[in-house]
Amino acid sequence: MEVIKYPPRSQWNELIKRPALDVSGLFDTVQTVLDEVRKEGDKAVKRYGEKFDNVSLQSLLVSGEEFAEAEKNIPEELKEAIRTAKDNIEKFHASQQFTGEKIETTAGVTCWQKAVAIEKVGLYIPGGTAPLFSTVLMLAVPARIAGCKEIVLCTPPNRVGKVHPAILFAAKVAGVSKICKAGGIQAIAALTYGTESIPKVYKIFGPGNQYVTAAKQLVSLRDVAIDMPAGPSEVQIIADGNANPAFIAVDFLSQAEHGADSQSILVTTDESIVMDVLQAIDEQLFELPRKELTSQSLRNSRIIVLKDQEEVISFTNQYAPEHLIMQTTNYREIAEQIENAGSVFMGPYTPESAGDYASGTNHTLPTNGYARAYSGVNLDSFIKKITFQEITREGIQNLGKTIEIMAANEQLDAHKNAVTIRIKNM
Amino acid sequence: MEVIKYPPRSQWNELIKRPALDVSGLFDTVQTVLDEVRKEGDKAVKRYGEKFDNVSLQSLLVSGEEFAEAEKNIPEELKEAIRTAKDNIEKFHASQQFTGEKIETTAGVTCWQKAVAIEKVGLYIPGGTAPLFSTVLMLAVPARIAGCKEIVLCTPPNRVGKVHPAILFAAKVAGVSKICKAGGIQAIAALTYGTESIPKVYKIFGPGNQYVTAAKQLVSLRDVAIDMPAGPSEVQIIADGNANPAFIAVDFLSQAEHGADSQSILVTTDESIVMDVLQAIDEQLFELPRKELTSQSLRNSRIIVLKDQEEVISFTNQYAPEHLIMQTTNYREIAEQIENAGSVFMGPYTPESAGDYASGTNHTLPTNGYARAYSGVNLDSFIKKITFQEITREGIQNLGKTIEIMAANEQLDAHKNAVTIRIKNM
Repeated sequence: MEVIKYPPRSQWNELIKRPALDVSGLFDTVQTVLDEVRKEGDKAVKRYGEKFDNVSLQSLLVSGEEFAEAEKNIPEELKEAIRTAKDNIEKFHASQQFTGEKIETTAGVTCWQKAVAIEKVGLYIPGGTAPLFSTVLMLAVPARIAGCKEIVLCTPPNRVGKVHPAILFAAKVAGVSKICKAGGIQAIAALTYGTESIPKVYKIFGPGNQYVTAAKQLVSLRDVAIDMPAGPSEVQIIADGNANPAFIAVDFLSQAEHGADSQSILVTTDESIVMDVLQAIDEQLFELPRKELTSQSLRNSRIIVLKDQEEVISFTNQYAPEHLIMQTTNYREIAEQIENAGSVFMGPYTPESAGDYASGTNHTLPTNGYARAYSGVNLDSFIKKITFQEITREGIQNLGKTIEIMAANEQLDAHKNAVTIRIKNM
Repeated sequence: MEVIKYPPRSQWNELIKRPALDVSGLFDTVQTVLDEVRKEGDKAVKRYGEKFDNVSLQSLLVSGEEFAEAEKNIPEELKEAIRTAKDNIEKFHASQQFTGEKIETTAGVTCWQKAVAIEKVGLYIPGGTAPLFSTVLMLAVPARIAGCKEIVLCTPPNRVGKVHPAILFAAKVAGVSKICKAGGIQAIAALTYGTESIPKVYKIFGPGNQYVTAAKQLVSLRDVAIDMPAGPSEVQIIADGNANPAFIAVDFLSQAEHGADSQSILVTTDESIVMDVLQAIDEQLFELPRKELTSQSLRNSRIIVLKDQEEVISFTNQYAPEHLIMQTTNYREIAEQIENAGSVFMGPYTPESAGDYASGTNHTLPTNGYARAYSGVNLDSFIKKITFQEITREGIQNLGKTIEIMAANEQLDAHKNAVTIRIKNM
């Protein structure tokens, strides 16, 4: 891992670079699968399930018995943890409900916004060795609170055609309408175009490998909305001399264990903590079951010593971290000045894993600097705001001249007439 | 124009189709221009300005003198209209300010959202015969209210290198920081990657021709956020026997005059109004200066007679119109049931042109059925919501077990340790 001391600002652009993720090389392969699923429906989804996931399925849907079986097979303490996390996620996202105010912009001209749920949403949950039931909660709980009528979850089954019981349990707790055994490009295609078993949705959420990412990119160009662009996960930690090096190290490693392309960055103005942190990382890494993968991603990671707090804040806003952890005495003062970040964790007892699982905030967040323009998933992600307006006779008389002059100057005569004819016919 | 009476639901999918817009055939051309501007900066922007817009420029920036000259050349009544529209847009968008509430999800665990402006935004305003100064207001006013620090506007100049004075005046009134004389793909490229004269931004807004649309699609895949996917403009009108046929006709034609690929749809349960509306359209069309273009887009337009109100609402939500005008006695009752639409115009004295120009709502709206998942441009479009959380010693003790159990079950040991180490070190 690189330690960089007092880099000049001209070098920062280099330091804020992420491990590259360019999936455009996959577009041809992906387009083929998209086209086949669009044309052939379930048949193509099953064929690609056999080819890519080595699983042969009769039905793409999880049955009621499978749900019941899952519920039996999960330890009670995990059920309890999932329920607690769900309650907190629900509390925080329910507080984000929007109620539009009616505004009279001119006498007789009233405008307002109304939040309406996206009727049908698709949630993608990747497969792999660890079941990402936490992501099920993060996507399905706000979807249900928003009022989405159809919440469809796609996830690849294992080789005997089963979905991990913790995913099924979390989906049930969170209120998912339908779970489909489909993964990869074929799942994204099915959610986009609909098949006999899998409903077409209007927006697709969730993480995935590079094929899923490429598929989401392609379908988002014309056919369906997606949550946000994807990239490897990352954390930035800001620490001072009062921070506990073991806390810094464990947060650093939490990020690194996500995958070989994850990135952790520690930024400090206190050179003296660097050795202690490095040592704590070494000690803790040794104990981790995923130590090989974790060491790999440490190669993308950096400790950067900057000269003062102004530089720290400025660097942070340029980097725009997905996760920002602040272990400094004055973390509240720094928080006020953060302009680009996905989710911010304040103070010594606020590890990222709290937000990853159970504090209530969402863990689907903008990576790769997208925090400069994107929010993480929140209740807004599952609704759209429709504007309404109602104008009275008095209102159109008050505003008519303005509209007529503007329309005439944009050479749109029917636009102008729409006012003129109404006023004439009063 | 087609009149379709009592179509069976099986035919609706056909009826909600829009004129196709597939720009992927332009991607190769577009990518070449993007790459050259990225590499060569201003030089390439100027070269393509000469090639595509027939204009040779010394400087890409609008000067202070050009602003002053523009202000002198605009009739006072247009200035006044622009100021009135700006005031209304400001009132409505200022009412959309977001203040996050602090939520204690578990004792000692506090989470909240904070809205922060996107620091740098780019606004694209197309060229052509009519100056789209109204779009300048629609994009720049909310950007300024949101607190965007840098608001950069790109628009192609005319052949003598000038920008229309109404655009300059609207930009000044609205608070644009910088106006650049660049159009087409090269403008989108410059806003995405930055050049010597044109700053790199984090999100690009605004309409454009098919090249601009294709360029926005390509850059949105990796490099910058965009407002929303583009498509031809459209209106749906719902009317009953009490509606004035002249009002229906003029709203129908307002949409049609936008461009040959625009679409107007009238939906009614009252067969008896059809002939009157057709006649009113004929009469009004005859008087319009843009009658040829307008007649062309009438070919994409339809009058559809449905059997009852339930069908009308159901059809509307399937079509998901960009603009929805309701000229029925019970328009408020219908409005309650609208789930998919960009902007809704209620009652006889609420023409679309009010919202297009001056009522205060935004006119940058989701077309092509995107209203199922997207909102129109509003204050949210210029901010992102960052989540914050602060956990006390008590908080992490309360929530620690839940986090540990979930992390262990997702096989993320460092995530679990992040809690364990903290509790051990208290």
